[in-house]
Order: sequence, then structure tokens, then C-alpha cells
Amino acid sequence: MLFDVLTIFPDLFVSPLEEGILRKARQEGKIRIELTDIRDFAEDRHATTDDRPFGGGEGMVMKPDPLAAAVEKVRAGGNTGKVILLTPQGRQYTQDIARELTAEKSLILVCGRYEGVDERFRAAFCDDEISIGDYILTGGELAAMVLIDSVTRLLPGVLGCPDSAGKDTFSRRLLKHPQYTRPRDFRGIEVPEVLMNGNHAAIGAYRFIEAVRRTLARRPDLLIQEEFTPEEHRLLKKHGLLEAISTVKAGRPDGC
Amino acid sequence: MLFDVLTIFPDLFVSPLEEGILRKARQEGKIRIELTDIRDFAEDRHATTDDRPFGGGEGMVMKPDPLAAAVEKVRAGGNTGKVILLTPQGRQYTQDIARELTAEKSLILVCGRYEGVDERFRAAFCDDEISIGDYILTGGELAAMVLIDSVTRLLPGVLGCPDSAGKDTFSRRLLKHPQYTRPRDFRGIEVPEVLMNGNHAAIGAYRFIEAVRRTLARRPDLLIQEEFTPEEHRLLKKHGLLEAISTVKAGRPDGC
Repeated sequence: MLFDVLTIFPDLFVSPLEEGILRKARQEGKIRIELTDIRDFAEDRHATTDDRPFGGGEGMVMKPDPLAAAVEKVRAGGNTGKVILLTPQGRQYTQDIARELTAEKSLILVCGRYEGVDERFRAAFCDDEISIGDYILTGGELAAMVLIDSVTRLLPGVLGCPDSAGKDTFSRRLLKHPQYTRPRDFRGIEVPEVLMNGNHAAIGAYRFIEAVRRTLARRPDLLIQEEFTPEEHRLLKKHGLLEAISTVKAGRPDGC
Repeated sequence: MLFDVLTIFPDLFVSPLEEGILRKARQEGKIRIELTDIRDFAEDRHATTDDRPFGGGEGMVMKPDPLAAAVEKVRAGGNTGKVILLTPQGRQYTQDIARELTAEKSLILVCGRYEGVDERFRAAFCDDEISIGDYILTGGELAAMVLIDSVTRLLPGVLGCPDSAGKDTFSRRLLKHPQYTRPRDFRGIEVPEVLMNGNHAAIGAYRFIEAVRRTLARRPDLLIQEEFTPEEHRLLKKHGLLEAISTVKAGRPDGC
């Protein structure tokens, strides 16, 4: 998969691409990341890529021409993929969108800065706009890295164990159950007994109930659309959780 | 403000900290970022920081001892701030949380990896758990950068113009209006006339209505708790938007 990234800070990407899964995926040819400096497409000798907004107001707006020229150069280089603008005005990024994007052969990621990009560039050149969350960053660069990282780990052969990605949080709408590893005794706190006895049905039931409890406590909004199997239903009833789930599904949960 | 970051990939942070606002804020002494390699606190000569989960399952879990020892070292170094674990199981990060965190003198950010951290470390050492969004990253490092970046730009004196941070998207629950800068004619598309005539009341009204239209189209969930002034109410009525807003406030919006 090819990611062409358009940014005024290409150097910002250097070290994150040289570590961990992204490094490995690049070395193995699973992904290719090309950085294009938008400043190279500025039309004046000061390499100006931003200017004051028409109509007044604080801050600077990214000029449409350098952005358009940068997209056209990358297109001419053979990337016919979607142009995605990273912006707080975009649709909210989710694991479902990450999964959808794994089907693309290539993407063009545009990193906004300052007060945003000129509306005419957005309307004429961007196929999609994505926000990684309801907060403001100094630019779209970290958002582009988040997108690249989350998509790359879902690509075939990138993660060591083939099933890891499928069983993540958000592969269904439950937070993950608590996890324990060695030592068995950590400063006087023992690993729960059920995890030590090799009874896989009991372990599965324990993990399911703990995942539901954690989701109810922290992110009840995730449960609204969650469906349970008859066996899960029986477990929820046994642990007295059916009523809490019904309440969540019936009304608007806290914070939503 | 001091950020102590605990990670098994300290080198991943090098280039993002050397660019843009974070570079400037560090140079001016507004923030300090200290990276601690969790591997330095592993107890074996292979510097093992993860192990298989008790009870079975794919992937690896971060061991509690090296994490605990790393936190204790940073505490001993004088950082008495909150310990925040970056994890998809955390509460959802928002601009409100970024604003709250600007009141802290120091923070300790713990970057999880793999299938998560041992539950006993989480329970005994973490004051808060934050998720930057409903998607899975290869680790908490990008999430820690997102937190640092979004908090830093809100610190006094970090952004060039003092009002920029206050008027961002999410300072109220509206997406931002479209922005335009030079040239006036971009490939045959002109800047809207209203922005060119210097009538500040008309410009303010135009921007407000466009912001509401965009929010209704893309993120109606943001409008549920939004309050409008009498003057804004009059504008919404004039542009036929009151009914759409009532509908959003009455029911659960799409995607929520």
C-alpha cells in the first residue's frame, strides 16, 4: 500500500517511520510512504504556503495553489488513490474506517496546519476528510501517522500473529478484558485463579463478563448497537448485567 | 510543563519533538519532555518487557514490574504528576480534557504496546486512562504525542496569537466555518463576496450559519448540548435551520 503524505513538515515523520511495525512493514515492502513538502510548490521565493483569511480573523489559512500543485504532482507520479484531508472538521475516524482503507492500493494524505486549508482546495481536491478525535492538534501530521499506523497493522502479514488484529478492542463493541502476565505474584497481588486452571470455557466466560463490566463502566455508548449470542445472554443474566445493558440500549448513555 | 514519557520506543519521539510548535515550546522552556525507556527496567539480560497472557490468547502483555519500576524512577526524579496510561480502554480524549490538563505542572505518560499492560500495574499505578479515539494503534506513542501536542498549544504564550486557541473548533460545539485566503480567484472559483466587503456583522453572520450548516451535515451529535444566543437564534430562523436543530436536539443523531 502506498501512502503519499503532503506536509510542510516532512522531517516530522522521520523517526516514527523508523521504529516498530512501520519500520518492519516498510522493509518488507508491505507499505511505502512518500513525503512531499508542500513548500516546494509555493509560487514565491519565500516558499509561502499560508496567508491571512479573507473576512478577517486570527491565524493563517493554507493557500489553495501550493496544495493543488502538490496533489497534481503526486497524481502525475502514478498515485490515483483517494485524497484524504486530515482535519477536525472531518468524519470521525474509527476502526471500521481503518478496516475499509485496507482495501485501497494507495492514498494521498493532506496534512492541514494553522487555521485550516482554503475551502476551494477542499471542495475541488479532497475525496474524504477525517478527524482522529474531538481535539485540536498543531497540524494534521500526527493524524496522518495515526491513520497510517492503524491501517498498516491490519494489512495481511504485518502483525506477527494473524488473529491479533481481529480480536482487538472495537472488532466488536466491547472494551478489552483485563490482561495478566508473569509474575504470578506482583507485589502481593495475585493473578485471578480462573486464569490459572486451564478451563477454557471458564476463562472465556470470565473475560467476556469483565469486558462487559468495563464497557458499562467506561464506554456505555459502545453497547447500544452490540448484539449478544444466547450463551452470552445467559452469562449476562447469571452475573446480573442484563438490566444495566437494557438501560443503556433504551436511553442515551452518559456522555453521548 | 513537564511530560515524562515511558515507552519501549523512545527514539520514535525524536523528530516530532524537533519540528514546529513543540520545538519552539521546548526551546522557550514552556515544556520539557523526558523520555524513559521501559526496557532499562527489565529484570533479565534480554530486557524483556512483555510476556504471554495467563489464561491463553494471542499476543503479548506488558509485564507489571518494569512499568512499575519506571514510574517509581520518574517519581523519585521529582515528577509528582498524574500517571496517565494511553490505551483504547481509556476515557475518550477531547478538547475539554486537553484544557483541563493545562492546569497540571507535570504528567507521566505511559505508552502501552501489544495486547495491553498487566491489569495489576494499571490498577495500582495509573491515575487516569485516556484513549485518543476508537481505533487501534501499534502502541501508545502516537497517542502520547497527540496529547502533548494538543495540550502544549493551549499553554500561555505558545501560539503566536493569543486568541487562536480559544476560537478553535470545539471551543464551542460547532465545526469551523469555511476559510478562504489569497488568491481571490483560484482556478475560476472566487472567494464569497460577503468576505470581501468589510461588513463585519455580515461576515460574522455568514460564518456562523456556515458553521452550523457544516456541523448539521457532518457532526449533528455536537449540536445536542449547544446553546444559542437570541441573536444566533434569529439568524438560524432566518436561514431556516431551527427545525433541523430541534430535530437533532430531540432525538439521537445519526452515528451516536
